[in-house]
Amino acid sequence: MRVDGQSYRTVWSDHSKGLVHIIDQRRLPWCFCIENLATVDATATAIRDMHVRGAGCIGVLAGYGMWLATREAEGRTENLRALAKTLTKTRPTARNLAWAVERQIATITDCSPNDWESASLALAESIADEDALWCEKIGQHGLPIIESIHGQKADKEPVQILTHCNAGWLAFADWGSATAPIYAAHRSGIPVHVWVDETRPRNQGARLTAWELQNEGVPHTVIADNAGGHLMQHRKVDVVITGTDRTTGKGDVANKIGTYHKALAAADNEIPFYVALPSSTFDWSCEDSLREIPIEERNAAEVAYIEGKNRQGTMEEVQVVNPNSPILNPAFDVTPARLITGLITERGICHANETSINELFPVGSRS
Amino acid sequence: MRVDGQSYRTVWSDHSKGLVHIIDQRRLPWCFCIENLATVDATATAIRDMHVRGAGCIGVLAGYGMWLATREAEGRTENLRALAKTLTKTRPTARNLAWAVERQIATITDCSPNDWESASLALAESIADEDALWCEKIGQHGLPIIESIHGQKADKEPVQILTHCNAGWLAFADWGSATAPIYAAHRSGIPVHVWVDETRPRNQGARLTAWELQNEGVPHTVIADNAGGHLMQHRKVDVVITGTDRTTGKGDVANKIGTYHKALAAADNEIPFYVALPSSTFDWSCEDSLREIPIEERNAAEVAYIEGKNRQGTMEEVQVVNPNSPILNPAFDVTPARLITGLITERGICHANETSINELFPVGSRS
Repeated sequence: MRVDGQSYRTVWSDHSKGLVHIIDQRRLPWCFCIENLATVDATATAIRDMHVRGAGCIGVLAGYGMWLATREAEGRTENLRALAKTLTKTRPTARNLAWAVERQIATITDCSPNDWESASLALAESIADEDALWCEKIGQHGLPIIESIHGQKADKEPVQILTHCNAGWLAFADWGSATAPIYAAHRSGIPVHVWVDETRPRNQGARLTAWELQNEGVPHTVIADNAGGHLMQHRKVDVVITGTDRTTGKGDVANKIGTYHKALAAADNEIPFYVALPSSTFDWSCEDSLREIPIEERNAAEVAYIEGKNRQGTMEEVQVVNPNSPILNPAFDVTPARLITGLITERGICHANETSINELFPVGSRS
Repeated sequence: MRVDGQSYRTVWSDHSKGLVHIIDQRRLPWCFCIENLATVDATATAIRDMHVRGAGCIGVLAGYGMWLATREAEGRTENLRALAKTLTKTRPTARNLAWAVERQIATITDCSPNDWESASLALAESIADEDALWCEKIGQHGLPIIESIHGQKADKEPVQILTHCNAGWLAFADWGSATAPIYAAHRSGIPVHVWVDETRPRNQGARLTAWELQNEGVPHTVIADNAGGHLMQHRKVDVVITGTDRTTGKGDVANKIGTYHKALAAADNEIPFYVALPSSTFDWSCEDSLREIPIEERNAAEVAYIEGKNRQGTMEEVQVVNPNSPILNPAFDVTPARLITGLITERGICHANETSINELFPVGSRS
């Protein structure tokens, strides 16, 4: 996607210099900084300290990290495996990370050490291309939803879309999941306007999604997470599209905390609520989403302190909660399938139920 | 209520010195500062610049402000009216403010100028006492709800109560509305634990409600506004109690933005949702809450910037939203009566419907 009019992916390589480049998301939206990673250690730090985040993006970076590993492993498989472990242990719950590293190890160890570097680079690029392609397909499948809403508008006013958190291109190699249909619609000339939930406590909406949309030239407005239901009551939202971190085979969706509130408000106001996802987020083994999906409880400091730019123009953290009060910080919630109008995937759209999901993803055809 | 073990109201007078004292809420929770107001001008500034907020509290301060007015009016009615106008124009939408000032003018102008000061002081104290008494009664009427939930708990664990924004004693003379049943339960020995929504964008929950509860010794935990539904799904909330800024005769409730989300989540999880209110918040003339209740849109800067204490211990504002993105900041939303289990008033509890409200507040008996 575009930044200041120029095309970027979140992760890319410079073959000649042996470098991996990433956009440092910690510094957005105030600074668009490209970081150069030359070693596996630097790559591990970038994942662990969240220079990049988002399952797709982390998987892509891990793929390139294994290319760097082949340059450090001195042709020894045990070195390669140790470097792989350095990468996988950075964020143990992100499934794309381990999956990318395992694919790399299988491919690399099939080759002679002379071919390690070229084979791993080719695979890293193919993982990135696949991630981008799947997101682009999500965009193409989601586009008719927005097109149809616009077609039904007598006044031909912009389609009003609400999204939560950042399921944008920064969370993948390119395009994003929830944002892909929005970008597709915008590029094909359908007028859209996006309500961006700020998404406390980490403010990914206010910092990342808003910045993405601004750079793509998509009209948008940032709102407090509390405001969505009110806008829906007043018919200022036509459709909600979010991403998902994990999707069950029955269509329940674990996504950023607060997604459930928006699904409830959409249902109460008969507004369609779609979830966009590459099929890699399906967890086919999950039977009872509320019981089985572990909800990460993150550090209280994420709620107690907030980082921003002060009057002097430097980044600073300020305390925003009564200092002596305990804090709980669950990072995700589960939106039950009954509140979801449909799942937009790289293969097409299905209903959020077992039958419809199985039709689109028959056992044996799952990635 | 108590601060560091000592009893306070939000507003009180020192007769001998001719001063009105208030707690400066802008500096909470980091500094408990008492401000001394000696003039009508200073009182008007305190209301306009939100040294105090909350309809009840503003009304009480306006009452005392009129006492200060009698000391400045030099016995002339036209001076008195000009000073009254200085007070009423500070926050034109707060109905308690105009109501308190009008009561004062009626009382004062019934007396000879020699009695102005004593009559207005007596009325100011009676307005404050009435506000505190009504809230205390709300507490007594709400107490059995909490008592009964506790009685049904096999494990006798604390009753888990969720609240939004600050409908605490800081918003009134004393006790608060939503917090009154909580304080009553806590003082009568029923174990309670309160989930405090931080309440973006102004963070009244994280700053004021959390501070209140800490000082009263009530166990509590601050959460992001996004987290309530998740806690309800996991049965970690037994009852929701909020306040209201305006209540229709049909039982719809306009309250701080985000209240509607919590009411939806409570209904979806079959958790009782109560609204606590002195009957002065009833707007008997409102027929269609969504159409007729004006929803104040506040400054975008409230969302874009957040104030807190920096590492050096000084208050500072930081920017937390992508600088080039538009922002919308609606301050209230409407929770429809169908989502409300009951209204806890100074006269008792009624259902959120016209019949039940009219039984408790027959025409002719309304304040």
